[in-house]
Amino acid sequence: MEDNNLIICGRNAVTELLNSDKPPSLNALYVQNEAKGLGSVISIAKNRGLVVKEVGADKLDRLCDGNRHGGVAIQIAAAEYTAVDDILKTDKPFVLITDGIEDPHNLGALIRTAEAAGVDGVIIPKRRNAQITAAVYTASAGAAAHVKIARVTNLAETLKSLKNGGLWVYGAEADGTAYSDIEFDNTGGIALVIGSEGRGLSRLVRDNCDFVVSIPMLGKINSLNASVSGGILMFHIANNRQLSTVNCQLPKGGGRD
Amino acid sequence: MEDNNLIICGRNAVTELLNSDKPPSLNALYVQNEAKGLGSVISIAKNRGLVVKEVGADKLDRLCDGNRHGGVAIQIAAAEYTAVDDILKTDKPFVLITDGIEDPHNLGALIRTAEAAGVDGVIIPKRRNAQITAAVYTASAGAAAHVKIARVTNLAETLKSLKNGGLWVYGAEADGTAYSDIEFDNTGGIALVIGSEGRGLSRLVRDNCDFVVSIPMLGKINSLNASVSGGILMFHIANNRQLSTVNCQLPKGGGRD
Repeated sequence: MEDNNLIICGRNAVTELLNSDKPPSLNALYVQNEAKGLGSVISIAKNRGLVVKEVGADKLDRLCDGNRHGGVAIQIAAAEYTAVDDILKTDKPFVLITDGIEDPHNLGALIRTAEAAGVDGVIIPKRRNAQITAAVYTASAGAAAHVKIARVTNLAETLKSLKNGGLWVYGAEADGTAYSDIEFDNTGGIALVIGSEGRGLSRLVRDNCDFVVSIPMLGKINSLNASVSGGILMFHIANNRQLSTVNCQLPKGGGRD
Repeated sequence: MEDNNLIICGRNAVTELLNSDKPPSLNALYVQNEAKGLGSVISIAKNRGLVVKEVGADKLDRLCDGNRHGGVAIQIAAAEYTAVDDILKTDKPFVLITDGIEDPHNLGALIRTAEAAGVDGVIIPKRRNAQITAAVYTASAGAAAHVKIARVTNLAETLKSLKNGGLWVYGAEADGTAYSDIEFDNTGGIALVIGSEGRGLSRLVRDNCDFVVSIPMLGKINSLNASVSGGILMFHIANNRQLSTVNCQLPKGGGRD
């Protein structure tokens, strides 16, 4: 990344970073004078060799750009993006792709949820999508340090190569088939594409999906927050993947079909 | 509610309110001078008999307390809470209950998701939980105008009476049974209780749940945003309810058991 110093704010995000197996390079911990309950954070930071700086609340407010910090922030060096191939090294990969998620909070929440759903990696486009900034790290509650993230120039081309590699590509869109009515095919891995709340999937991306799925709305509001939609679909897929790999083979003729 | 005038900000929330079948009493529409794309909002507002006031960006910023407004805000009279019995008037009700959701954005996002998942109503405690404020309305993208919301003094007592009324009460907590491993029992309706992100369910509430369910975390981060957790569980339940009422009776001996 171009921006070489990110400030991550808040106790959850800082704690996750400090406990990460493969954290980004950590530079310095900022703690507010006389803030309480930060003893363990400070001692872990010192054990990791970080400089610990005691500062005033106003300095933290400025570092965190007015966002909540709970008395603590950490300065990290550049986030390192990984290559798409690196995400695909596993058997039957599960990949989240975002298409036009421009709000850093939504991207962060999606990455947090993706990590909890066990994805092998996240792919984001270089344009018209939030990049991995400090706000995204923080909104991901530190999950962005635990999950591989790749950045691509042309998402449609990436989808083609994922399909050539054996993955099934599912795009989420308001007018697709109800996700609960289909069986997600995990024979070669799954890529799930989440579009923007306002505009959905871009046309070229949609054209390159194997299937377009939707979440049926049972009320009067006809949209969900992107991170909630992503959570519903990712955990549905995660459950199906576990069933298909761990214990199940539904009897032919039985079940929902 | 005590606070008699709420200001709801943002195009989505305002549009939802104006299109609501049973909106709260709408008082006035504020539009920013020369803001674009607001023609239809203004004409619907005029048809509904609202006063339309053109104001400067600074006035809207103040009304909206610094939150995003996209050039439009609406003033509404008090939200009216409904009685719990009113939510239960339907056959096999589906109810969302929050226990300690203090962040207005989380409560709003939960209400938005609940409405989309087809709940019959939402129950919130009067204390240690956000109330239905303007921030909650806005975060719910207007869904708070479409769904019945009841407020109770003693959540544990409410759970007892729901159980006496035939509902099954499921609480969400980190150490419960994996939700994907159980069959949600919809014989008498379902109440789902979502606790706070930090503390989970309060003890008395937990003790009064029929079942405690959890979302298995497959990564290193061990929590999800409350609205994402709620979305995963509510849509899982909504799917099960549809299956159980519409088409399914899984063959004995088959399926996941």
